[in-house]
Amino acid sequence: MSKLKVTAEPGSLQIVGTREFDAPRHLVFQVFTDPDLVPQWWGPREFVTTVEIMDPRPAGSWRFLHTLPDGTSYGFHGVYHDVVFPERIVYTFEFEEMPGHVLLETVTFQEIDGRTRLTFNSVFQSVEDRDGMVRSGMEDGAAASYDRLEELLKTRV
Amino acid sequence: MSKLKVTAEPGSLQIVGTREFDAPRHLVFQVFTDPDLVPQWWGPREFVTTVEIMDPRPAGSWRFLHTLPDGTSYGFHGVYHDVVFPERIVYTFEFEEMPGHVLLETVTFQEIDGRTRLTFNSVFQSVEDRDGMVRSGMEDGAAASYDRLEELLKTRV
Repeated sequence: MSKLKVTAEPGSLQIVGTREFDAPRHLVFQVFTDPDLVPQWWGPREFVTTVEIMDPRPAGSWRFLHTLPDGTSYGFHGVYHDVVFPERIVYTFEFEEMPGHVLLETVTFQEIDGRTRLTFNSVFQSVEDRDGMVRSGMEDGAAASYDRLEELLKTRV
Repeated sequence: MSKLKVTAEPGSLQIVGTREFDAPRHLVFQVFTDPDLVPQWWGPREFVTTVEIMDPRPAGSWRFLHTLPDGTSYGFHGVYHDVVFPERIVYTFEFEEMPGHVLLETVTFQEIDGRTRLTFNSVFQSVEDRDGMVRSGMEDGAAASYDRLEELLKTRV
């Protein structure tokens, strides 16, 4: 299984990560942007993910909820700037426990010999926001999401 | 007249600027977000600005055109993530001559003794994109816009 590689330079506003999947690009893109499939891969396994809104087109909105085993829920939302099949998605992202703190995420999909390299590029409004996201354990969360996405892709190749 | 102060550290993804206006915050915010008034202040004086779309609310779109004296037009567009009267606007921004290169801009309005301090914080997907924007003369363009905004505000205080 491929591993997630994450770069977050000290003092930078950015987090960049790459992960390869053993599936063609159009399929990775389709699964990534399918509201019905998001609950099967988005977030750590121990959380229940609910898609409240997901309209993946320019100026479409999204809102997901994470529900913990104790019943507590956390919201995340944003708006799509661009959804370019099967290449690129650009959207804003706000964790509702930190209102007003927004990041811009760009996810690109490259096809390499029938496999797909996914790259995410997250840029934050401040280094403090970026460091807070790193400390919150986003790398483990992203790694778990992509492991789940790979498992889901295996059932669809 | 107040001057625009811009910071763009070498190697950073960010441009930050501040400018003060001799007008109350609610008025600066109203004028800034009024589609009918944008052509009177957005961009250098020698360009004609046309507002094709401007729907300042979460997930609303915007698209402006600049028309040069020779008739050439350039488009800019994006989507609003947040519009919080009279405090803050967060939106994406894409210059259509550089498709796929997007930035996240946050404009905040602080009231200080009846005057308003506007701060913009632009974060780019790469240092190359940020440096390209600096080289394009955005600082002069922003300074011209804010001078025009100040003149417009004087007619409305």
